[in-house]
Amino acid sequence: MTLERWRRITDWPLVVASLLFLVAYSIQVIVDPRGDLGALLEDLLWVSWGTFLVDYVVSLVLAPQRWRWFLTHLFNLATVVLPMIRPLRVLRVVTLLTVLQRTAGRAVRGQIVIYVTGATLLLVYVASLAVLDAERAGGGSISTFGDAIWWAFTTITTVGYGDLAPITLQGRVIAVGLMLSGIALLGVVTATFASWIVEKVSAENTSRQAATVAHVDALRSEIAELRAVLLAMNPGLHVADPAPLEDPEAPSADPAPS
Amino acid sequence: MTLERWRRITDWPLVVASLLFLVAYSIQVIVDPRGDLGALLEDLLWVSWGTFLVDYVVSLVLAPQRWRWFLTHLFNLATVVLPMIRPLRVLRVVTLLTVLQRTAGRAVRGQIVIYVTGATLLLVYVASLAVLDAERAGGGSISTFGDAIWWAFTTITTVGYGDLAPITLQGRVIAVGLMLSGIALLGVVTATFASWIVEKVSAENTSRQAATVAHVDALRSEIAELRAVLLAMNPGLHVADPAPLEDPEAPSADPAPS
Amino acid sequence: MTLERWRRITDWPLVVASLLFLVAYSIQVIVDPRGDLGALLEDLLWVSWGTFLVDYVVSLVLAPQRWRWFLTHLFNLATVVLPMIRPLRVLRVVTLLTVLQRTAGRAVRGQIVIYVTGATLLLVYVASLAVLDAERAGGGSISTFGDAIWWAFTTITTVGYGDLAPITLQGRVIAVGLMLSGIALLGVVTATFASWIVEKVSAENTSRQAATVAHVDALRSEIAELRAVLLAMNPGLHVADPAPLEDPEAPSADPAPS
Amino acid sequence: MTLERWRRITDWPLVVASLLFLVAYSIQVIVDPRGDLGALLEDLLWVSWGTFLVDYVVSLVLAPQRWRWFLTHLFNLATVVLPMIRPLRVLRVVTLLTVLQRTAGRAVRGQIVIYVTGATLLLVYVASLAVLDAERAGGGSISTFGDAIWWAFTTITTVGYGDLAPITLQGRVIAVGLMLSGIALLGVVTATFASWIVEKVSAENTSRQAATVAHVDALRSEIAELRAVLLAMNPGLHVADPAPLEDPEAPSADPAPS
Repeated sequence: MTLERWRRITDWPLVVASLLFLVAYSIQVIVDPRGDLGALLEDLLWVSWGTFLVDYVVSLVLAPQRWRWFLTHLFNLATVVLPMIRPLRVLRVVTLLTVLQRTAGRAVRGQIVIYVTGATLLLVYVASLAVLDAERAGGGSISTFGDAIWWAFTTITTVGYGDLAPITLQGRVIAVGLMLSGIALLGVVTATFASWIVEKVSAENTSRQAATVAHVDALRSEIAELRAVLLAMNPGLHVADPAPLEDPEAPSADPAPS
Repeated sequence: MTLERWRRITDWPLVVASLLFLVAYSIQVIVDPRGDLGALLEDLLWVSWGTFLVDYVVSLVLAPQRWRWFLTHLFNLATVVLPMIRPLRVLRVVTLLTVLQRTAGRAVRGQIVIYVTGATLLLVYVASLAVLDAERAGGGSISTFGDAIWWAFTTITTVGYGDLAPITLQGRVIAVGLMLSGIALLGVVTATFASWIVEKVSAENTSRQAATVAHVDALRSEIAELRAVLLAMNPGLHVADPAPLEDPEAPSADPAPS
Repeated sequence: MTLERWRRITDWPLVVASLLFLVAYSIQVIVDPRGDLGALLEDLLWVSWGTFLVDYVVSLVLAPQRWRWFLTHLFNLATVVLPMIRPLRVLRVVTLLTVLQRTAGRAVRGQIVIYVTGATLLLVYVASLAVLDAERAGGGSISTFGDAIWWAFTTITTVGYGDLAPITLQGRVIAVGLMLSGIALLGVVTATFASWIVEKVSAENTSRQAATVAHVDALRSEIAELRAVLLAMNPGLHVADPAPLEDPEAPSADPAPS
Repeated sequence: MTLERWRRITDWPLVVASLLFLVAYSIQVIVDPRGDLGALLEDLLWVSWGTFLVDYVVSLVLAPQRWRWFLTHLFNLATVVLPMIRPLRVLRVVTLLTVLQRTAGRAVRGQIVIYVTGATLLLVYVASLAVLDAERAGGGSISTFGDAIWWAFTTITTVGYGDLAPITLQGRVIAVGLMLSGIALLGVVTATFASWIVEKVSAENTSRQAATVAHVDALRSEIAELRAVLLAMNPGLHVADPAPLEDPEAPSADPAPS
C-alpha cells in the first residue's frame, strides 16, 4: 500500500476522530462531569488519540523516504506527542483544518472567505476550551466558558484589553497560537480585499485593462487569416522553416508555457 | 409582483425606518427620558421594527425559491428576530449600510474611501449607543456616552487599552462585532493603499507597463492594414477558412471574453 | 492674483510658521516656563496662528468657487478655528505634512518609505506634546514627556497596553487621531511590502511575466517590416482604407486611448 | 583591499561573533551566574563587541566615499556605540539578520516565509532577554524569562494585554522596536497572502489571465512564418528599412527593455 492511498483511506476517519475529540473535550471542559460519564469521555479522548497515533506510525512506515517524511512532518509528531499535556490536545483539531483546507484547495476568493470564517470560529472555540481547561486548573482569572470565548475574541482580533489574560504556561502557549492566527486572519482578510479592489479598479476603464490571453488569441486568428490569404495567392508554395527571430531564446509557438 | 420590484420600492422606506430607529434609539439611550416622551420613543422603535418584519415576510413570500432565500438571508432573519433583545436592535442599522453599499456598488477607489469612512463612523456611533445601553443596565464601567465613544474607537482600531471593557453578554457581543469590523476596516484601508501604490509604481516606467487592450487594438489595426494591402494586390481573390491554429482551443476573434 | 499663485508663494512661509509653532509649543509643554519666556512663547504661538488665519481668509477670497472651496477645505477651517482649544493646536502641524506630501507627490516606493517614516515620527512627537499638555492639566496619568512618547508609540502601533491612557476629552480626541494614523501606517507599510513582493515573485520567471508595452512595440516593428516587404513587392500599389475587422467596435489605430 | 572584498571575508566571522554574543548574553541574563563564569561571559561579550568595532572602523577606512558611507551606515554606528548600554547590546543581533537577509535576497515567496519566521523568533528571543535584563535591574514587573517571552509575543503581535509592561527607559526603547517589528511582520504576512491570492484568482480563468511574454513570443513566431512565406514568394527581394510607424517613439525590436 502506498502512502498516497493510505492518506485517501484515512482522511475521513481522521476527521471523525477529530470531531469525536472535539465533542468529548467540549463536554469534559464545559460540563466537567464526574463518575461514569467523566470516565467515558476520558476513554473517548484516548480512542481519538490512538487513531492519530496509528495514523502517524503507519504513515511513517509507508513513506518512501522515512527520514525526510519525519523531518517535514514534525508538526504531526507534535499533535501526537504533545497532547499528553491535556490542554494541548486541541492541537489535534489542526488535522480537521488540514482536511478542510485540502477541500478548499482550488482557492477562489469565495472559498477563501468560507474557509477563513470557518477556521477562525473553530480556532476561537477550541482555544477557549483549552484556555479554560488550563486556567481553571492553574487558578487564573478565566473561569467560565463565556469569559474564555470573550478572551479568545479579544486575542485573535489583536485588541487585547487585558481584563482577562492567561497566567499558566499552557494557557500562554495557546494564547500565542491564537495571536499568530490573528495576524494570519488579518493578512487573509486584507489580501482578499486587496485582490477585490485591484480587480474593480482595473475593470473600471476597459481600454486600460491588461491585455489577456483572449486578446492575444484574437490576434493570432487574424495573423492565421493573413497566412491563408497569402497561401491562397500562391497555392503550390512550399515554405521552409521560418526566418530566425532576433531573440534566439524565443520559445516555439506553444502559447501556454508551464 | 416580483422580489426585484419589491426591493426597489422598499429601499428608501427601509432607510427611513433605519434612520427613525437611529434617532429614537439615540435619544432613548443618551437622554434616557421618562414619561410621555419615553413611551413615544418606544412606540417609534416598535414601528421601525414592524417595518422590517413586514419587509422580511413579504420578501420571503415573493422569493422564487423560498427555502434558498431563507438560507441565504439568515442575517436578515437575525436583524428581525434578535432586536427583541434591546441593545441588539442596532443590527437594524446594517440595513442602512446595505443600501449605502448598493449605491457604492461601482466600487472605484474614491467611492470605497467615502463608504468606508461613513460606515466606520456609523458603526462606532451605534456600537457606542448599544454598549452604553447594555453596560449601564448591567452595572459595567462604561457609564457615559463619551466613555462609550472612546471605548468604541479603541476597539475598532484594535488598540484595546482595557481601561474600559464590557462585562455584560450583550455588551461583549457588540464588542466582538466591532473588533471584526476593525479587522475589516484595516483590510480595506490597506488594500486601498496597496492598489494605489501598485498603480503608482507601475506608472513610473512606461515601457515596463503591462500591455493594455488599447495596445492590442493598435496591433489589430496594423494587421488589418496588411490584409488590405494583400487584397489590394489580388482583388478577386477568394479566401477559404483560415488555416487551423496550433492550439485548437483558441477562441474565435471575439476580443472581449466573458 | 490667482489661488494657484498664492499657494506657491505661501507654501514655505506656512512651513516656517508650522516649525515656529512646533518649537515654541515643544518648549512650552516640556519646559513649562514662566515669566518673560513663557509670555514670548505664547506670543509666538499667536503669530503662528495668525499666519494660518491670514492664509485661510486670503485663499477663501481668491477661490473661483468660494462655496465649493469652503466645503472641500473644512479640515483647513478646523486647523484655524479649533486651535483655540490649546492642545488641539497640533492640528496646525498637518499643514507641514501636506507640504511634505506635495513634495513626495511622484510616489515611488522609496519616497513613500521616507515620507511615512517622517510623518510617523512627527505625529508621535506632536501627539505626545498635545496629550501631555491636556492630561497634565486634567489630572491624567500621563505626566512626563517620556511617558507621553511611550504612550504615543503603544497607540500608533495599536498595541495599547493600557498602562497609560488619556482621561480628558482633548487627550482622547488626540488619541483617536493617533489610532487612525496607526491604521493608515499599517496600511502603507503592508501595501509597500505587497507591491515589492508582487514585483519580486513575477520577476522570478521571465516567461510568465506580463507582456509589457515594450513587447507590443517589438511586435509592431515586425508587422511594419512585413508591410515593407509587401510594398517592396508591389511598389506602385495604392491601398484604400483597411478592410473592416470582425469586431466593428475596434478603435482606430490610436494606441493611447483616453 | 576593497570594501567589497572585506565584506565577503568578514560575513561569517561577524555571524560567529553575533552567535557568540547571543549565547553568552543568554546565559548571563537567564542564569545570571557569579564568579568565574560570570567574568568569562563578560569577557566574551567584550570580544564580540570588539569584532564589530574593528569591522566598523576597517569598513569606514576602506569605503571609497567615507563621508557618504558614514551617513548611510548610521545604524551600524549605533550597533557599535549604543551597546555600551547593556541591554541595547541586542542591537548587535541585527548584523545576524542582515547576513540572513542577504542570503534570502532572491526573494521568492517561500524564502520570505522562512526568513520572516526566523527573524520573528530571533527578535522575540533577544527582545525578551534584553527586556528582562533592563526591567529586573529597574524593578519592573517582568522578572522571569517566561514572563519576558510572553510579554514579547503580546507586543510583536500588537495584542498588548498590558498585564506586563516595561517601565524602564531601556525596556521601553526595546518595546518600541518590537512594536515596529510587529507592524512589519503584519505587513509581510499580509503581503505574502495577497500575492498568493492574486495569483490564485487570476489562475482560475485562463482566458482572462494577463498575456505573458510567452504569448507575445508565440505571436512573433507566427509573424516570422508569414515573412518566410512572403520571402519564399519572392526570393530575390531586397527590403529597405521598414515603413515608419504611427508612433515615432516606438523602440526598436528589442523585446527586453531594461
